[in-house]
Amino acid sequence: MKAEILAVGTELLLGNIANTNAQFLSERLADLGFDVYRHTVVGDNGERLKKAFEEAFSRVDLIITTGGLGPTKDDLTKEIAFEFFNKKSVVHKETLDKIEAYFKKMNRPMVESNKKQAYFPEDVTILCNDFGTAPGCGIEENGKILIMLPGPPKEMKPMFENYGIPFLEKFSDCVLTSKILRVMGVGESKAEEMIHDIIDNQTNPTIAPYAKEGEMIFRITAKADTKEEGYKLIEPLETEIRNSLGIAVYAEGETTLENVVGELLVKKNLTISSAESCTGGLLAGTLINYPGISAVYKEGAITYTNESKVERLGVSEETLKEHGAVSRETAEEMAKGVALRSNTNIGISTTGIAGPGGGTKEKPVGLVYVGLYFNGEVKSKEFHLVGSREKIRITTVLRALEWIRREIIK
Amino acid sequence: MKAEILAVGTELLLGNIANTNAQFLSERLADLGFDVYRHTVVGDNGERLKKAFEEAFSRVDLIITTGGLGPTKDDLTKEIAFEFFNKKSVVHKETLDKIEAYFKKMNRPMVESNKKQAYFPEDVTILCNDFGTAPGCGIEENGKILIMLPGPPKEMKPMFENYGIPFLEKFSDCVLTSKILRVMGVGESKAEEMIHDIIDNQTNPTIAPYAKEGEMIFRITAKADTKEEGYKLIEPLETEIRNSLGIAVYAEGETTLENVVGELLVKKNLTISSAESCTGGLLAGTLINYPGISAVYKEGAITYTNESKVERLGVSEETLKEHGAVSRETAEEMAKGVALRSNTNIGISTTGIAGPGGGTKEKPVGLVYVGLYFNGEVKSKEFHLVGSREKIRITTVLRALEWIRREIIK
Repeated sequence: MKAEILAVGTELLLGNIANTNAQFLSERLADLGFDVYRHTVVGDNGERLKKAFEEAFSRVDLIITTGGLGPTKDDLTKEIAFEFFNKKSVVHKETLDKIEAYFKKMNRPMVESNKKQAYFPEDVTILCNDFGTAPGCGIEENGKILIMLPGPPKEMKPMFENYGIPFLEKFSDCVLTSKILRVMGVGESKAEEMIHDIIDNQTNPTIAPYAKEGEMIFRITAKADTKEEGYKLIEPLETEIRNSLGIAVYAEGETTLENVVGELLVKKNLTISSAESCTGGLLAGTLINYPGISAVYKEGAITYTNESKVERLGVSEETLKEHGAVSRETAEEMAKGVALRSNTNIGISTTGIAGPGGGTKEKPVGLVYVGLYFNGEVKSKEFHLVGSREKIRITTVLRALEWIRREIIK
Repeated sequence: MKAEILAVGTELLLGNIANTNAQFLSERLADLGFDVYRHTVVGDNGERLKKAFEEAFSRVDLIITTGGLGPTKDDLTKEIAFEFFNKKSVVHKETLDKIEAYFKKMNRPMVESNKKQAYFPEDVTILCNDFGTAPGCGIEENGKILIMLPGPPKEMKPMFENYGIPFLEKFSDCVLTSKILRVMGVGESKAEEMIHDIIDNQTNPTIAPYAKEGEMIFRITAKADTKEEGYKLIEPLETEIRNSLGIAVYAEGETTLENVVGELLVKKNLTISSAESCTGGLLAGTLINYPGISAVYKEGAITYTNESKVERLGVSEETLKEHGAVSRETAEEMAKGVALRSNTNIGISTTGIAGPGGGTKEKPVGLVYVGLYFNGEVKSKEFHLVGSREKIRITTVLRALEWIRREIIK
């Protein structure tokens, strides 16, 4: 089925925010087998919105709107849509109760205009808003389908996932089930090559690969009569992918590498300390995103100068003189030094040339060493990274975290 | 004049990337006095692209396109646009030379299809691409104006700023000149209130305020016959704003707080060290974004545990027992400790409760202390921050950097 996404909001036309909703919905619709033909953004203007509806429905059978469901006079999406479908709204008791309960819970007074959000025609499907007051809804008539979602991504995304997709499935002869596998430590083309045959030979489930910052994501989507059957279809394919990619598959679903590493450290009760030069605190700063980290992360040293590498970590002056601060030897002494001084199971270190200046022919910008001390053993890895100063530092952090993960589970 | 933005690219409809170009152009067009009526995204499909042109020009007089200027068969924007305006392309020698020189510089072979990028009708204005191979262009005919820009934001933004705006100015009876002032350390509503009268009483120049993460941006735009006159019009208004907001104005134009602080530290030759608890390396990691920082940043300690605060920074056990790790006293001892041990002019420290757990009634999530040692004197500030763990940590970093800036220039 062909689909279009219609965002409503003057703030988008003023450039106050980017239309990230369209990106999210496009990605999900592609997974679900819909072809997105167009994105449109219009302002909070009834006439222009009405035209946009008419135009889009002349091209496709499914429109998903975002925005314009709020309580103010500017919020017109529902009114215009119901007018388009020639439907009259009445108060929806259950929704009104929910909105009242929401305001009670938030300890905020409910104003009269909030009641507007509880008005819907009787024959539409109301989509719950578990994270705000504006419910969405789904309409189907004469083969035309309209789904209206709120503008804030934090409300829109869960509404679409939990209520929008099940609504869409009604117009399909099957149920769609999907699973996300996150892959780290193999390049995009390499990962696709490794599972090339699996991708090529599949029609149901399908596999959609995406490259995100420093990682690959594979979304496996199955069509079946029930969710259960869908998972059964996904299972053998998932096993096949996992067998091909091995430990490069670092997680399932929505999470981050630092959460996975943080959880592993806590689960195995492995304490950790960090010694950073080129990443300058970014490695620790990233790991500490994981809320439970204080149980295992002890301390870190940001040793930007040679003196601090010697004084804080016990890197030998000879090593620095002979091999330089950016060297395998220094990385290893840094990792060992921080672990021994902090009395932790793991010590992780970084030293490199993030640029834009400071590179030489022997040690160019992008040359980075990561050192890893792990329960008495110390190792190092050499990386040749490309991109801006920021990119090199972020990539170093990801490579270091990924190495810790692999070392723990090995 | 009414305008629309038309993005071309199947990758947008698949959700691989968000249409951030439309946000950037909308913001700039609003500053320049254009009314943006619609954003549209279509795929790399000639017929649909042609329809989109026809529709948009039936509504407005200015269209800005992004994307579809590359060398491949999929890149159709120019072809379709020239067809729409009924114009024939010929090779543009100067552009071809530039593309050839670009490939030479990048040490990459130029393929035949790259020549396609040098074909333009004779009566259009070519917009240089200083950061890639695909030039843009501007067309005006019978009151309809079309500007075509490349898709990658790094190429699109400078092309629009440096060549697109001057092209647009030709169709205006005046020249637009603008200046950006960046404001930190006053809330959005407070900042707007402070210069309320200035904003209200202005028609030329105009002032557009934006709230970005942790800062306010004021763009002053003047209409005049020449750039010079424009700056003359901006000057008294800028002085008035600077007088009202004082040192809260931290910079002009495109820059970041860490760059401003980094530059100040280097200029004044003030060395600095850091001691972080709740920000866990993020403060140093942010400051080190500034490429010249190694001249002044010596080292940092990430002291997540009480023991490390005592051992690495000399925080007294009594202080920790009596006031706790999250206290004014601990923050001050951390700042002083790191500065004295690292022998730096400045020591900056953070300690707080970033959440989501760990809060109590006395010390709730969001309570943060920043300590600052500055050439022998030590002080601290208490903050009550709101938002997620990430938000609290990022805000702490900004507040700390802002304090350093104010201390240096005072």
